[in-house]
This record gives sequence, structure tokens and C-alpha cells, in this order.
Amino acid sequence: MEKIRVTVWNEFKHEKEMPEVAEIYPDGIHGTIAAFLNKEADIEAGTATLEMPEHGLTEEVLNNTDVLIWWGHCAHHLVSDEIVERVHRRIMDGMGLIVLHSGHASKIFHKICGTTSVDLRWREAGEKEILWAVNPGHPILKGLDSHIIIEHEETYGEHFNIPQPDEQIFISWFEGGEVFRSGCTFTRGKGHIFYFQPGHETFPIYHQPEIQKVITNAVRWAAPAADTPKIVYGHHPDPIIQK
Amino acid sequence: MEKIRVTVWNEFKHEKEMPEVAEIYPDGIHGTIAAFLNKEADIEAGTATLEMPEHGLTEEVLNNTDVLIWWGHCAHHLVSDEIVERVHRRIMDGMGLIVLHSGHASKIFHKICGTTSVDLRWREAGEKEILWAVNPGHPILKGLDSHIIIEHEETYGEHFNIPQPDEQIFISWFEGGEVFRSGCTFTRGKGHIFYFQPGHETFPIYHQPEIQKVITNAVRWAAPAADTPKIVYGHHPDPIIQK
Amino acid sequence: MEKIRVTVWNEFKHEKEMPEVAEIYPDGIHGTIAAFLNKEADIEAGTATLEMPEHGLTEEVLNNTDVLIWWGHCAHHLVSDEIVERVHRRIMDGMGLIVLHSGHASKIFHKICGTTSVDLRWREAGEKEILWAVNPGHPILKGLDSHIIIEHEETYGEHFNIPQPDEQIFISWFEGGEVFRSGCTFTRGKGHIFYFQPGHETFPIYHQPEIQKVITNAVRWAAPAADTPKIVYGHHPDPIIQK
Amino acid sequence: MEKIRVTVWNEFKHEKEMPEVAEIYPDGIHGTIAAFLNKEADIEAGTATLEMPEHGLTEEVLNNTDVLIWWGHCAHHLVSDEIVERVHRRIMDGMGLIVLHSGHASKIFHKICGTTSVDLRWREAGEKEILWAVNPGHPILKGLDSHIIIEHEETYGEHFNIPQPDEQIFISWFEGGEVFRSGCTFTRGKGHIFYFQPGHETFPIYHQPEIQKVITNAVRWAAPAADTPKIVYGHHPDPIIQK
Repeated sequence: MEKIRVTVWNEFKHEKEMPEVAEIYPDGIHGTIAAFLNKEADIEAGTATLEMPEHGLTEEVLNNTDVLIWWGHCAHHLVSDEIVERVHRRIMDGMGLIVLHSGHASKIFHKICGTTSVDLRWREAGEKEILWAVNPGHPILKGLDSHIIIEHEETYGEHFNIPQPDEQIFISWFEGGEVFRSGCTFTRGKGHIFYFQPGHETFPIYHQPEIQKVITNAVRWAAPAADTPKIVYGHHPDPIIQK
Repeated sequence: MEKIRVTVWNEFKHEKEMPEVAEIYPDGIHGTIAAFLNKEADIEAGTATLEMPEHGLTEEVLNNTDVLIWWGHCAHHLVSDEIVERVHRRIMDGMGLIVLHSGHASKIFHKICGTTSVDLRWREAGEKEILWAVNPGHPILKGLDSHIIIEHEETYGEHFNIPQPDEQIFISWFEGGEVFRSGCTFTRGKGHIFYFQPGHETFPIYHQPEIQKVITNAVRWAAPAADTPKIVYGHHPDPIIQK
Repeated sequence: MEKIRVTVWNEFKHEKEMPEVAEIYPDGIHGTIAAFLNKEADIEAGTATLEMPEHGLTEEVLNNTDVLIWWGHCAHHLVSDEIVERVHRRIMDGMGLIVLHSGHASKIFHKICGTTSVDLRWREAGEKEILWAVNPGHPILKGLDSHIIIEHEETYGEHFNIPQPDEQIFISWFEGGEVFRSGCTFTRGKGHIFYFQPGHETFPIYHQPEIQKVITNAVRWAAPAADTPKIVYGHHPDPIIQK
Repeated sequence: MEKIRVTVWNEFKHEKEMPEVAEIYPDGIHGTIAAFLNKEADIEAGTATLEMPEHGLTEEVLNNTDVLIWWGHCAHHLVSDEIVERVHRRIMDGMGLIVLHSGHASKIFHKICGTTSVDLRWREAGEKEILWAVNPGHPILKGLDSHIIIEHEETYGEHFNIPQPDEQIFISWFEGGEVFRSGCTFTRGKGHIFYFQPGHETFPIYHQPEIQKVITNAVRWAAPAADTPKIVYGHHPDPIIQK
């Protein structure tokens, strides 16, 4: 069996600057995510971070990545436009993308959305969140229940300035009165994209089994289909139908 | 100016059987809705109820209806299949349809959805509801704020077994932990359909100005465009392009 | 490996009444489709026809079907409403459905669509058809080229009275000037549905390798995900969040 | 009645460099489009071109534009990124956008799509095109027939690398065997966008009455609704629901 090759990208700043985050994620958020993915027989996950040359996203790394996972928060502006273009080209060609939490404000998600996806309503109050499944036959929901409870999470609320998702997978309830489209799929070019809201750095959310299951399912869903049509864009001077 | 001709349909049972409902809606839910619509210069609203011959939805009435509003709850099974087919044909031909609250379980909405739209999660507990606007440039939201609060409403929760709406307009928060896709548009044939969840009979929800504004806006949105293409379906023996 | 269990349903009338059809499909259209599917290691296909008791779609057969394929043309009205309801319930619960060609006018597809999906433009003129891939990363397109040419097919044209598909996979060109949305996906309840237009009975279309590949891919795409959330619809008197 | 304020933007190069284009559009493509729009009592159209300061799209012009129409072809790269951002901000805030023909490769449409919308299949062969209406109740189709024939047009073909449109309005047939999604709507932020394919500069397509009708209808459809919800994005420290 060929494994799905995942690269987990993290800006990796909070873990080095905030002891309370380092305590939750001693190997970084990327390390935690890669570790639970690597327990799956059909997945092989590596990591990359902002500080690495080319942010760890060289042509070679990306050409050998089936699904890219993205976590960023305070350093979106430090990501090079050239690397963003490179990631985008790979998505057009079929690479899957999973954008987590504050990755909604990343350059690559902004580019995918065509909106100001940075725009939402938020509050850090450690409120309870309930994620409700609204597309219960979807493969991203395998092995899950009708809803997932997160005891403490940063609150995100509507309006979230994204295009209407191709598929709405989760909608969340927050204790303080907000709702949020917390699980959304998009297709761009040949690439399948999943935005998943949970994961504020000060809570151990990526250690929660249901959240790990969603991300694992999403990796399988976003992995490109093999041998899809090769499209030759541009000038085709000869008509298919000759007069 | 030609007015938009609305027919407000109500099964009209609770108001006659439950004094607490009659007190809120002495003229019936249909009477209240028609009354606020008739205050608009560009709208002309009549009413129809289950007990009338042909449920008040004769060919003539429907042929002179631009937008049909539907409220039903306990008597969906008493609506004749023939009348449902007649309403459906008019929707195919462009009549708008606004389905309110427990109308989610009506025969016509079930037919439109192609699912078991009766299926949702519910509780009568008079909980607070907050409706959040998730498509803020939509004409159904004219004159409204980012959210609407209803002090006491029956709780509806996901999963609501509908197809993903063409446009998600509102998503609701309920005090007990549920979320609900409370404002949804669909297109079927030439007809534009809006499902709007608020309106349990024991609360004065259709007296609330914001709710009246949503329904009024939806009437204008759902009214058929004049002079749309006349499609001749079926056998066309002669090709457009001759060899 | 557990195999995907397919039931290929055919009204099976043309093959018995029209020698030119019997010549193309001596084992019936259903027999041809089941045969090419059974060459796949991960698929196990049986057949069912109109004339069988309960049209061959007993509770037991359906409970052991992951994906149902439907071909019908002149006998849609002979399909029992009770069986249609049974098929629909299974789709709600996750069974996949692939509707072929004139199955657009079947009771089950009509019910799924919520429109008059019987309505389209057509002509029997043996025109050339070209199916163009418009969602090139989709798994239904694995192993295919940018377009498929069918030398002779019944012409179907727009407007086709269906709701806008969740995903548009193919759009077809016909020699006489028509276009048609020839590959469309829908989600209803937990079920995934694919409508695929090719397959007029008087042409050997289901013997064409690319067409077989599309149907085979669609079987894998429509097969239900295992262990999706079990939704308990209805009354939930106890709120999740206690005051 | 307040008029809908339209700005028709054109790169305005072909008309000055190619006599055969100047002959068709002596006042420029923008001049022709503005002229037919200005015949409508409810529309007031001005023009702007690439060579003007700030490409004619100053803050003041855009703040007084309800719908922007965009025609560009060979000079997309000369449009300043800053102006593109300005146009985008106005779309987020509700300004409508109509992108014509080779505007598919413009910076603003590329940004809206989040794909490489420059990618399609094309040929200059003066082929016949037939545009089929696939959403016949849509207001963009008022006063039109089931299809529009253009005698000679540049051929555009699938795959066209755009996200699946929110609404598919037209699909086109081309003489040489191609199909194309030639009328597509998108929503981004509060803005409504319509892509409409016809209009190669060497054919008198914007003089054709049906094409003028589509563009006129699209202006009315894309005009922003008045008084939509004012969203305050960002930090909301106080929950709506107090514990």
C-alpha cells in the first residue's frame, strides 16, 4: 500500500515563546499532529516550520506531499509570497490542504477564498464549544458522534467572511452566544481543501481523540485521486469537429 | 406599480384549539402575517387555510399568487396530495415559496428537499435563540443587524435532514447547546424557496419587527422575475445545427 | 478486504422486445454492467429487474446493497411507490445511487431532485456526443482523459430540470447544437447520488471502456463511508447545557 | 428613483491599435456598453480605462459605483495591484462586479476565484456559439429565450479553472466541439459577481440585443441591496450571553 504523504506546517512561535503552550505541545503543534497521524498505517507525516529555509516547503517537499496541514497565527505576514504561490500551484495540481484554526488568516487560505477570510468575530474566554455534524454521511465524520464537545476554546463567531463552502461539515455553538461554520470543504483546481476551526494554542485540543479523528479522516478525504485527467490548457488551434 | 401577490397559508388549528395561541394570534398566524405584509406598498397579501375547499389553494388562487407562505404543524397529513402537486407545479413555473417553522415537515417542503426534512432535533423549553447572518449582502437581510435575538422559542437542532442550501442566510444558536440552519434558500425549477425556522405558535414571534422584516424581504426576493425564458421541454426532432 | 456490494437494477424491457437491443445486450443492460463491475477485485455486483417479486429490491437485498445502479426508460410508472420509498429510506441511511440515462425520469430520481427531472430536450438522431470533464480532480474521473467521445447517442439538451448539482462532473456537447449536464452529483441524507447521462439502449455505450471506467469510479465514490455518525432525530427533552 | 451607478472599465488597447476593432467599437467597447446601459431609465453608466490616472478607479469613483463592469485582454499585467486591492475591498462591501470575456484572466477575477482562472482552452476560429439557459427562473434571463446564438465568436472550452459557480446561468456550445460555462455567478463578501463569456473584440457581439439584455439584467442583479447588516469584525470581549 502506498502511504498518504502528509506535511504538517506550523509557524512554531507560541511554543517557543509561551511556556504554557510549550507545556501542552512540547514537540510543537506540528509534532503532536504528525505523531498521531503517524500511528495510522496508511499515513506518513513529516513536519515543516516557518524558520526553516523556504519555510520547509521546498519544491521537493511539496512535490512529495499529498496533503499539507497548516497552522499559523501571529506570523502570517512572514510567510513569503513566493512560497504561497508554490503551495497554490500544488493545490491546483491536486495536493490537499487542511487549514486549522487561526490559519483562516493565512495567505494561502485568503488566496483560496477570494475574500477577507481574516474577518470573523472572536474572544479569548475559554468558552465551551459544541461542534455539530451537519453532513452526517461525509467521510470526514467516520467514527464520530452527532456532536463533539470541547471544554475550553477560543470563541470564533459569524460572520466569517468566506465563500459559502462546497460542503458544510460542522457548525459550532459557543457558550457566549456565537455560532461558527467550523468545518468547511472547498475545491480549487484539482485540490480539496478542508478548513477546521478547533485548536487554540493554549488548550490541549489536538490531544483530544475526536479532534484527531477528524483531522485523520480529513487527510484521507483530501488526498488526491491518482491518475486524474491531464488538462492541456491554452491554445488548441484544431477543432475536434471538422466541418 | 404591480404589487407582489402573496397567499399566506395556515393549517389554522392551534389558534382554534389552544386559548394561549388564540390570545397571541386572534386572527390566526396567517392573519397576523398577512396584516404586516399588507402594510407594504408593493405587497398585496391574502390568506388560505386547510379547512377551506381545496385548502383555499384553487387553481385560480395559485395562478394569481406570486409567493406562497406556508405554516403547518400537526395536520400535514390532512393536506391533499393533489393540492401539493398543484403547488409544486406552480413553483416549477416560478411561484416563490416561504416555508415557516414546523412547515419543515410539510408535504410540499419534503417534496422540494428530496430528503426526510421532518427529521431534526427539537425540544419545547422556551429557550433563547440567536439568529446569525452568514450571508450579509443578501437582500433577505436588508435593514437588519448582524444577529436577531428571540427571547423564547422552541429549540430546533442539527442534524436537520435537508440538502445543503443553495444559500445559507441564517444559522441559529439555542440556549441548550444546539445550532440550526434557520434561514436557507433553494431553487427548484423556476421557483425560489426560503425556509425560515422561527415561529412556534405559543410565542409571539411573528409580532417581532425583525422577524416581520425577514419575511417581508423574503417575499420580495422570492417573487418571480417577469418574462423569464419559456422552455419547451420534450421532443425536438430538428437539430439547431444542420449538417 | 470487504467488497462494495452493488445491485444493478434494470427495467429489462427493451432487450426482450427489440431485437436490435438484445443483440447489443444479450444479457440485458444490467448483465453487461454487472459483468464489467465484477471484474474489479473490490466490487461484487448482482442484478435485479422490474419483473421480479418486489422488483428484486426486497428489504434484504437493499440492506445488503452499498450502491444501487438504476436504468429504466418506458416503465417508470410500473415501479411500485412502496419500493421507491424503501430505496429512498436506504439512500437516507447511506446507500449510494447511480442513475443512468433515461433514469432521469424514474420515480426515485424525481424524488431525489424535488423537480420535474423528466423535463429535458431530446432527439433520437444518433448524434456524436463529447463529454467534457469540468471537475478534473474528482475521483469519478480517475484514469480518464479531458473528454470522452461517444460516436452515436440519443441527444439530451438543456434545460434539464434538476436542482444545481452539488458537483458538476461532466458537461456534454451534442452534434445538433445542444449541451447537457451529463455528470452530476447530489447528496441527500447520508446518501451520495450520481446521475450519468450516457446509455441509450440502441447503441453499445456500456461496452465502451471509458464509460465503464466512469461507472466503476462512481461506484467507489458513492459507496457509503463506514461508521458515520448515528443521528437520533426527534425529541431531546434534556438540553446539553444545563442552566 | 435612485439610479444604479455603473462604471464600465476597459483596457482600451485593441480599439486604438487594430482598425478592424475600432470599426466595430468606434467609442471603445466601454463606450458601447455604457451607451446601451444609459438607455435604461434606472441605470447611469460612466466609463474608465487603463490609461487614466489610477486607471480611472479612484476611491471616489469606486465609492460611487454600484456595479463595475470589466473588460481586459492583453494588458492585465499593467493593472496596478493597489487598484485591484481597492476594487476587491469595494466588492467585499457590496459593489457588484461583471467580468466579461477575456476578463477571466484579469487580476481581480483571479483573486475572486482563488484558482488559475486564466486557464481554459481557446481558439480563434470565428465559430458559432449557442448559449443555453440552465437556470431559467433567474433574473439575469428576463426577456430572453431558451438559448442565444452568436454567429461568430472566439472559442472558449473546458476545463475552465474556476470554482464551481454558486449559480450556473449559461452553458455554451461551440461549433468545433467544445462546451463552456459561459454565465456564472459567485458571491464574495457582500458582493455579487457575474462572469459572462461573450465578447471577443473582433466581432460585434456587444451590439447584439440579447447580449445587451443579459448585461443589463446582470447590472440589476449585481447591484447591492441597500442597508444590509453592518458587520463589526474582530475582537468582541463581551459575550452576548452572560453566565
